[in-house]
Amino acid sequence: MNELHGDTICALATPPGVAGLAVIRVSGPNAVAVCSSCFTSAVALSQAPSHTIRVGWWMAGTTRIDEVTCTLFLAPNSYTGEDVVEIGCHGGVFVVNQIIASLVDWGVRPALPGEFTRRAFVNHKLDLTQVEAVADIIHSQSVPGAQTAARQLAGGFTAQLSDLRYQLLSAAGLLEVELDFSEEGYEFVSREAFAKAVIKGLSVVSNLLDSARAAEVLRSGFQVAIAGYPNAGKSSLFNALLGRDRAIVSPVAGTTRDYIQEQLVIDGCTVHLVDTAGLRDTADTIEMQGIRITRSQIEQSNLVLVVNDASAGFAHSMGLCAELEDKFPGHKVVTVQNKMDLLNMDLGQWDSLVPAGHVAVSSLHPEGVSALRGILSEAVSASYDGVMDALVNARQAALLQTIKTTLESTLRSLQHNIPADLIAIDVRSAVRVIGEITGETWNPDVLDQVFSRFCIGK
Amino acid sequence: MNELHGDTICALATPPGVAGLAVIRVSGPNAVAVCSSCFTSAVALSQAPSHTIRVGWWMAGTTRIDEVTCTLFLAPNSYTGEDVVEIGCHGGVFVVNQIIASLVDWGVRPALPGEFTRRAFVNHKLDLTQVEAVADIIHSQSVPGAQTAARQLAGGFTAQLSDLRYQLLSAAGLLEVELDFSEEGYEFVSREAFAKAVIKGLSVVSNLLDSARAAEVLRSGFQVAIAGYPNAGKSSLFNALLGRDRAIVSPVAGTTRDYIQEQLVIDGCTVHLVDTAGLRDTADTIEMQGIRITRSQIEQSNLVLVVNDASAGFAHSMGLCAELEDKFPGHKVVTVQNKMDLLNMDLGQWDSLVPAGHVAVSSLHPEGVSALRGILSEAVSASYDGVMDALVNARQAALLQTIKTTLESTLRSLQHNIPADLIAIDVRSAVRVIGEITGETWNPDVLDQVFSRFCIGK
Repeated sequence: MNELHGDTICALATPPGVAGLAVIRVSGPNAVAVCSSCFTSAVALSQAPSHTIRVGWWMAGTTRIDEVTCTLFLAPNSYTGEDVVEIGCHGGVFVVNQIIASLVDWGVRPALPGEFTRRAFVNHKLDLTQVEAVADIIHSQSVPGAQTAARQLAGGFTAQLSDLRYQLLSAAGLLEVELDFSEEGYEFVSREAFAKAVIKGLSVVSNLLDSARAAEVLRSGFQVAIAGYPNAGKSSLFNALLGRDRAIVSPVAGTTRDYIQEQLVIDGCTVHLVDTAGLRDTADTIEMQGIRITRSQIEQSNLVLVVNDASAGFAHSMGLCAELEDKFPGHKVVTVQNKMDLLNMDLGQWDSLVPAGHVAVSSLHPEGVSALRGILSEAVSASYDGVMDALVNARQAALLQTIKTTLESTLRSLQHNIPADLIAIDVRSAVRVIGEITGETWNPDVLDQVFSRFCIGK
Repeated sequence: MNELHGDTICALATPPGVAGLAVIRVSGPNAVAVCSSCFTSAVALSQAPSHTIRVGWWMAGTTRIDEVTCTLFLAPNSYTGEDVVEIGCHGGVFVVNQIIASLVDWGVRPALPGEFTRRAFVNHKLDLTQVEAVADIIHSQSVPGAQTAARQLAGGFTAQLSDLRYQLLSAAGLLEVELDFSEEGYEFVSREAFAKAVIKGLSVVSNLLDSARAAEVLRSGFQVAIAGYPNAGKSSLFNALLGRDRAIVSPVAGTTRDYIQEQLVIDGCTVHLVDTAGLRDTADTIEMQGIRITRSQIEQSNLVLVVNDASAGFAHSMGLCAELEDKFPGHKVVTVQNKMDLLNMDLGQWDSLVPAGHVAVSSLHPEGVSALRGILSEAVSASYDGVMDALVNARQAALLQTIKTTLESTLRSLQHNIPADLIAIDVRSAVRVIGEITGETWNPDVLDQVFSRFCIGK
């Protein structure tokens, strides 16, 4: 994509659909002139000051299209850094289409996905971590995810790296100066102080890297798979957690189905609850129905609930738990003792009856189910512990890993009195990669990748 | 609903979903104060002039929620006539929910469907025909429908009735004055001139009434049913008109299905194309599969295409056409001679071969299908001929019918020298009903009915 934008673009910025209001965004050098031609109001749009809104009629020639508002943002004080007009019209499909058609008639080009934000980046209104924060705010599947993305949009990610970047940049400069005086043996950079700064930077980078998996939970949600032998009561537990009837989840009887997935929100985080097909218990191996899909669902999960029919004995599903822990090491597995009501025990005794760490429930008793919800809530919260001001994504994680490796190499060099010029090469390289994260150094391929997540109109 | 609004309300005004931008509307006496509490920007919102927009951060306490814009409309210069703040945030579900939650925390109430427009009506910003135009602009299924609704929003409907209303009001006053002078035999109202005015008014009312069916096409679209005997090639013609494969329209094989409905847009109007189940040809009666649904689809249609397999003879479906015209009088029925390619005739001769008024097509030849499209296009345009500045709806049509009946009675009275007091009663009654159309006189039930069509946020 050519980054020398000269044309004027437009797109619907709000979701498609029927509603009270829709907003069409126009950005570029002709935005004000074109909108002035179509918009009649008491005060001409072209005479209006920046950051004001006018009410009037959108016209296509002599035809009234809609009574609209036009908000003016004059360059450089706009989202894109260019002249921007936002047209607020009634949220009807045919109205929106007519307004966009009249803009196109005046030579305005329909925008590509993410093109407004791309222009904001190119015009230095946002750095690349802020651009990525915009996408995360829009797509985030949790309240803390949206909030972390908001802090990233406010510059929180870049701020975390800025101290390290400053230390590295000044050290690199001084190391290079040292070269000119190498014969005199001057040391402009204290190796000890610099090593301390690198260690501090390494800790920042490692913390960011460690938060990448948690960031994924905040971005996409927390997945919980419900597994178990057939007739363990998985589906009724699934319904009880959802708080609605499975028949509504899937009213078609007799359909072969590998898993059912539904969303619920626990403590502001989207939980993808997956009811997997019953796992067969044959001889001493586990055969799975629809093995590949069920396996991939369990693999993608942050937590697996193994549902056991308590009336068949608390240890009935031990083999399955062992198999899952063996096949999916690192996955949190919680055993749920279901159908506790069949044991004819007092509800107050359930918890003391089941093995330690197991959860006692019955789909018929809300108490047990709400205890299970509490356990899910704790697991969700724990999963994004330590996420601060950045939702580290795959692109950033790869670059952070490179910085980490480079800094580790720098540290070794410092500890082994490696010549200044070799250290400086590492340091410069780390600075360059930090610049790739924030977008100070970029290439069109990276931008294309970043903006591929964007929708049209953003 | 209590029409004495004192509270402040909020709602998402744009469609739900993920997009670059979402707009949350806040209206009421506390709108500015509450938004000022949550919104941090260089210039405080409470200090900003009306019709300006500010960029800043939306905060929940000390937590950053999103970088947003706040647009200020101070009473009475706003949509509702109250203080209004429009919050433009990123179009993510969790961001929108957090902002609405923080407004609710400050005592703002989530709005009911149509409540913003209801306040606009109560505060005399819009009359009732304009309120209904707002709903029609949003929901209209055609370009001319949206344009007609825009003219109605600009006051076009009310203007059509205003001359009549003026004539009736002044005549009523003078007729009542005549009563006081009845013994002297004065005639303040020229019966002849007034009869002329009533006749003119009747013509306006009749034209509006006549356009009600056409308005329904503009509002909801034009329905075309494809009917025919089995194996006439209905489904392939359906696909050819849609320009896409039926298998994609419905990928499930072997499902019992009474009809398939898809939308296409012809000349800016939504056409609902319905492929009905094949009609059985047994003895001399027509049996329909899924008779009730197919019958109701044909009944609701503005046009029926009877598809005939030309290779079985041009007259093969004549019985069906006769049956349909008999059962659904007033429906436009067009006979389509399909599978013309099987006749091994030159494409140029097709039109001259088939009976007059029939359309010769083959799903394999785009020429015939585009000719059929042309016929649909003409039928669509003809269907809303005469619609001017009003999309007359059922409520308005019922009131217009009452006005028409009353004016006819007035006219008879004028022609038969009925006493002034009796005429005046009719005239006052017509004026009152005109007021019900425009909303000068209203009751909560009527408003509830009108606003039941509205979505939340409008």
